[in-house]
Amino acid sequence: MKTYLDCIPCFMAQAIRAGRMADMEETGIKGLLDAMGGMLKDISLESTPPETGLLIYRKVTAITGVSDPFKKAKEAGIAEALSLYPQLIRVVRSSGNPLLTAIRLAVAGNIIDLGVDGEYDIKGEINRIMDQDFAIFDYDGFREYLNRAGSVLYIGDNAGESVFDKILIGELGKKVTYVVRDAPVVNDVTFGDAVASGLEEVAEIISSGCPAPGTIPELCNDDFLERYRKADMIISKGQGNYEGLSDSGRPVFFMLKAKCSVLARDLGVRKNDIVLKMHQIKT
Amino acid sequence: MKTYLDCIPCFMAQAIRAGRMADMEETGIKGLLDAMGGMLKDISLESTPPETGLLIYRKVTAITGVSDPFKKAKEAGIAEALSLYPQLIRVVRSSGNPLLTAIRLAVAGNIIDLGVDGEYDIKGEINRIMDQDFAIFDYDGFREYLNRAGSVLYIGDNAGESVFDKILIGELGKKVTYVVRDAPVVNDVTFGDAVASGLEEVAEIISSGCPAPGTIPELCNDDFLERYRKADMIISKGQGNYEGLSDSGRPVFFMLKAKCSVLARDLGVRKNDIVLKMHQIKT
Repeated sequence: MKTYLDCIPCFMAQAIRAGRMADMEETGIKGLLDAMGGMLKDISLESTPPETGLLIYRKVTAITGVSDPFKKAKEAGIAEALSLYPQLIRVVRSSGNPLLTAIRLAVAGNIIDLGVDGEYDIKGEINRIMDQDFAIFDYDGFREYLNRAGSVLYIGDNAGESVFDKILIGELGKKVTYVVRDAPVVNDVTFGDAVASGLEEVAEIISSGCPAPGTIPELCNDDFLERYRKADMIISKGQGNYEGLSDSGRPVFFMLKAKCSVLARDLGVRKNDIVLKMHQIKT
Repeated sequence: MKTYLDCIPCFMAQAIRAGRMADMEETGIKGLLDAMGGMLKDISLESTPPETGLLIYRKVTAITGVSDPFKKAKEAGIAEALSLYPQLIRVVRSSGNPLLTAIRLAVAGNIIDLGVDGEYDIKGEINRIMDQDFAIFDYDGFREYLNRAGSVLYIGDNAGESVFDKILIGELGKKVTYVVRDAPVVNDVTFGDAVASGLEEVAEIISSGCPAPGTIPELCNDDFLERYRKADMIISKGQGNYEGLSDSGRPVFFMLKAKCSVLARDLGVRKNDIVLKMHQIKT
């Protein structure tokens, strides 16, 4: 997905939130915004939003020396999700359609995103999404691919959401590789976060090599790219991965909540809609 | 009111809306944002938001040559308000407290603001505000000042809202001077808009001399400043005027809907709260 004009105010708001997370003073954050402002002319609307996100978070680290300002927020997100885990497993197991219930929970977990908004209510979100219709619902295609797949490449998004991913992976019944970011950026899931979420019990965890808050193929390592090219089935969670992979030539199932109106418009849905979309490969 | 960090993303969003109103191409608006970004370092957090607003709208005009991009939107806002006018007058006259009902309507009219959000539903807003509690309600002080005042200086905000101001002015029962912006900026009310709203029938209309989307004393003309210094009672409508006059040494009644969370926080209320606030003069 390209960068839209309306992404630019959002980049500025993200910079403010990241600066506050890094305990920067107001004047320091103003300096960060001034620097971002000066960089705007070098940000192309043809680049993807996560590429700009990377610039923002690198700038915060360069100014503050804090490499992982969202560390505590991520730990709290994982801890809260783990506290819900036993109850959610029971919900899935007692459901008439455990796979679909687990998909709904995995989408609900996508609310744990400190890049887009900064606040969330995970329990309220679970209740909402259990009854919410999907705006795009390629569930038949999902099951068809899943039945045929020998293995699944599952690209994670946020720390905490990762616990919800574990629940869905448990229901897929396939060998799964769980893909994480290469280094801390916003509250995106890293190797350590995935381990803390218990994902080692259900998947092999690998890094995409991408340091941006999304999956940008040009910034990924060879190991990931080869697995991505060869995967029987790919599940991509959240906005950042969609933004980087929406023009992909691979059959990807995008699973997300549209948390901003720009991405919603790009998908042809409304803000707050939930989506399970099978990527149409352009031929 | 000073500029808060969170105003900066909003400035960018305002620039996008203004560019679209001026029918700029996407690449042109990107250039506008790049220019705004480069100017950020020169924008002090000690300046008021309308001062920055002025820079934005001047830049739009400089790039597009369009001096009044909101002209049609203002005409539509006035026309819609005038179509409601006869019915609203009946609501006021049949009310148990016509003054208070007219105040409520004047606050409802403050929703016609294309600077803060860009969309509004005036009929829905009237219904809501008729039953909404004021978060700050210095009504006793308002009546007291009004009873003693020989005349009232009434500082308008948006075109269209001006029709609602006419209704309230009719209920004040005093000689009123209605203050407008010196030149078109966003959808703020100018002399022509005030005349089109029928304000000549109930008030003397003067320009503050201020070209910004608010009232910044340093940018006002001597005539306004002298009237402002001598006025028995001052009514100030909307956010832009509050932002410029909130540190004033004069007894001002601020009448507005808090349409953004930054201004709401500055006032100690919540977003979407309505306010009739008597300015406390710092001694």
